[in-house]
Amino acid sequence: MITFIEPKILKGFRDFLPEAEIIRRGLTQKIEDAFISFGFVPIDTPAIEYTEILLGKGGGETEKQIYRFKDNGGRDVALRFDLTVPFARYTALHREELVFPFKRYHIGKVWRGENTQRGRYREFTQCDFDIIGSDSPASDFEILLLIKEIFLILGLDVSIHINHRGLFNRFLSHIGQNEKSADILRTVDKISKAGKEETLKNLTELTGEKNAEKILDFTEARGGFSGLLDHITELTGGPSPEADRLTALRNFMIDSSNDTQKGEPFIFNPSITRGLDYYTGVVFETFLNELPDIGSVCSGGRYDNLAGLYSKGGSISGVGSSIGLDRLLAALESLNKLPAAENCFTAIACVEEDKSGQYQKLAGWLRGEGIPCEVFLDHGGSEKQLVKQFMLAEKKGMRYVLIPGKDPLKDKAALRDLKTRKSTEYEIKDIISYLLNNK
Amino acid sequence: MITFIEPKILKGFRDFLPEAEIIRRGLTQKIEDAFISFGFVPIDTPAIEYTEILLGKGGGETEKQIYRFKDNGGRDVALRFDLTVPFARYTALHREELVFPFKRYHIGKVWRGENTQRGRYREFTQCDFDIIGSDSPASDFEILLLIKEIFLILGLDVSIHINHRGLFNRFLSHIGQNEKSADILRTVDKISKAGKEETLKNLTELTGEKNAEKILDFTEARGGFSGLLDHITELTGGPSPEADRLTALRNFMIDSSNDTQKGEPFIFNPSITRGLDYYTGVVFETFLNELPDIGSVCSGGRYDNLAGLYSKGGSISGVGSSIGLDRLLAALESLNKLPAAENCFTAIACVEEDKSGQYQKLAGWLRGEGIPCEVFLDHGGSEKQLVKQFMLAEKKGMRYVLIPGKDPLKDKAALRDLKTRKSTEYEIKDIISYLLNNK
Repeated sequence: MITFIEPKILKGFRDFLPEAEIIRRGLTQKIEDAFISFGFVPIDTPAIEYTEILLGKGGGETEKQIYRFKDNGGRDVALRFDLTVPFARYTALHREELVFPFKRYHIGKVWRGENTQRGRYREFTQCDFDIIGSDSPASDFEILLLIKEIFLILGLDVSIHINHRGLFNRFLSHIGQNEKSADILRTVDKISKAGKEETLKNLTELTGEKNAEKILDFTEARGGFSGLLDHITELTGGPSPEADRLTALRNFMIDSSNDTQKGEPFIFNPSITRGLDYYTGVVFETFLNELPDIGSVCSGGRYDNLAGLYSKGGSISGVGSSIGLDRLLAALESLNKLPAAENCFTAIACVEEDKSGQYQKLAGWLRGEGIPCEVFLDHGGSEKQLVKQFMLAEKKGMRYVLIPGKDPLKDKAALRDLKTRKSTEYEIKDIISYLLNNK
Repeated sequence: MITFIEPKILKGFRDFLPEAEIIRRGLTQKIEDAFISFGFVPIDTPAIEYTEILLGKGGGETEKQIYRFKDNGGRDVALRFDLTVPFARYTALHREELVFPFKRYHIGKVWRGENTQRGRYREFTQCDFDIIGSDSPASDFEILLLIKEIFLILGLDVSIHINHRGLFNRFLSHIGQNEKSADILRTVDKISKAGKEETLKNLTELTGEKNAEKILDFTEARGGFSGLLDHITELTGGPSPEADRLTALRNFMIDSSNDTQKGEPFIFNPSITRGLDYYTGVVFETFLNELPDIGSVCSGGRYDNLAGLYSKGGSISGVGSSIGLDRLLAALESLNKLPAAENCFTAIACVEEDKSGQYQKLAGWLRGEGIPCEVFLDHGGSEKQLVKQFMLAEKKGMRYVLIPGKDPLKDKAALRDLKTRKSTEYEIKDIISYLLNNK
């Protein structure tokens, strides 16, 4: 008896059909090209690490979601759930081999056993980029500029909301509420979910009515970058290194932008806190102007001591950000802005099956000129009936079918344009020129 | 007390430092470009699958090496250990959505808990490419041609050894030994490890001395493709569909090659059997002529029914091959043929830290012309001392440092060539032309 196994796939996991995978690779390539153009270099780390490394001080939510198991040697291991923790471990381990400031990017899959009912996947791709070993405002700015550049390349209009974690803490000190800062931060961070009224109520319980109103006023303050910064500087008790850093960033924004360019994406937003993340300085979130409701598509900030948990050496501060490729793809899809999958455009028809060697040689000429070219491998029943091959080419999203002559390498060939449904005879060299001009 | 966690990595797993990762990505890109130029399309599948799917009928060696565990929902799951089994499951599941013949490639990581003492890794990358849904010799040939093309692009001289599984079986039938074919196959497959004498001894035990010698003579026969094929045809009892297929492949090889091209890589080798794999037709292995001892760097063959275990539909035959990227990289390294890591070539020096916005704008002009360009983010202590920045650029493998003028966007700038150790002043537009011509 032959056993049959149902070809099922795990919940929360996905196969990628060719068209989706071509699009995903194209998108990744564009992002990677931007990283490279800024001088960022790639790294890679294992999918599996010691659980102790991945959980670090952590636990909590992460511990519940992590794919954790004993390997064949009895080690307690787990699949990475983000690219930040492995990067911290990597930095501690290779500290002596890296050149600082170190600008790296890392594109890779991560795994979390999340609740799939919220449309989340359990396997997804992250694109992380960081500058570590530099504390300068110029490195904060470079990360922001790179975000701007990436979304420009992707044709997406974004707003990049920026804040400084230290400003909020300074404000809390100024109103005498710094001891409750963690609770206040947690409450404020949930405002978009909980609503203003509920947040005010919760803050009042924590700090009293008057302070609660002040805190809400602080986080809800809006305005032009410089004017708002003046206002916030006042609320935080006057000039401070944190306000100075935002001023420096503002100057870099102005200096780097083109006069002709309207709608700078940078917005100062005192409500951005990045929750209870490990950020200590500038923080930022990126929203699609046409689809703000999906939340931030690229977030990050500055942290004090990346590798601290794994390294007894001096602290390494840095600034970094992460793009969730899957959320971005979903956004592009619902905006109808997915780049078209760039298929192979040209096929060589199979007229006589025993001439496949010559067809391949002909295809080699086209490929040598930079024209990707698929050779059809059988004639599907009859040499005279090319219709099936035209249909196959159309199904594959192709535009042209080259129908070779009796002597495939010397005789004229016909070029079938599947869009106009016309075939025309040309010399092969003219077909190559035509295809090069009509890629 | 601050807890400190030792930043260790699991045995058999690797971090990739930037230079190694740039090289790995460059190599992968070249291989992928070859796939695309032949009209192959990419797919992807999850890293984790139901264990039942991955082990299939299997068990044995695979079962011992697999990373298998219970997920948080209690499912029996495992990490994929190759890309073939997931492709079989994928084909069964998406049969209706795919266009046949289907030419796909899949580049991805796989995991095996192998013995690391033999220098094996537990996480490695495979590049698989297959044509399924076509039984024609032209598709066997296309896979072979693609292998030839890939190694040509990589600058590696290879021999592609080809055989037909059916020819060996036909020969065994001819000498009345077909019932023991599995055992014989297993013995012959180990000849390179066991040696000729030991193999002969083992074969004699199985088939008697006379047959053992015949079998060894068969597998050890060598010669020009056509002449040897004639000889083998005779040993297998005369003309057969299997011999005809090899003749067809031989014709395709001749038809597709350039007259001017010497040293065709294709060799008919009756000893190639691919062990107990699921291949049923043509099989092949690829050896580096300068480093044959590391074994095949690209192997494959034709199989009868890829998705058979997972699909009750009609069988889908195909032909495919796989490149082990890690073995290939190791080979390139020991041959001193690793492509140089293409680093970002140009940095913009930081003369005054508060001008970083203008430096970024200047960098944007270079990037816009296709010149990757890193902006240095601080001056490392003093605006007048550029030596540290030159050293940093050298460490990063760069060639040029652009030193902006007082007005970074208008004044002349100096271009420091780190190789000649000379700095020359130019207008910015002339620097751009110079860099474009000296990339």
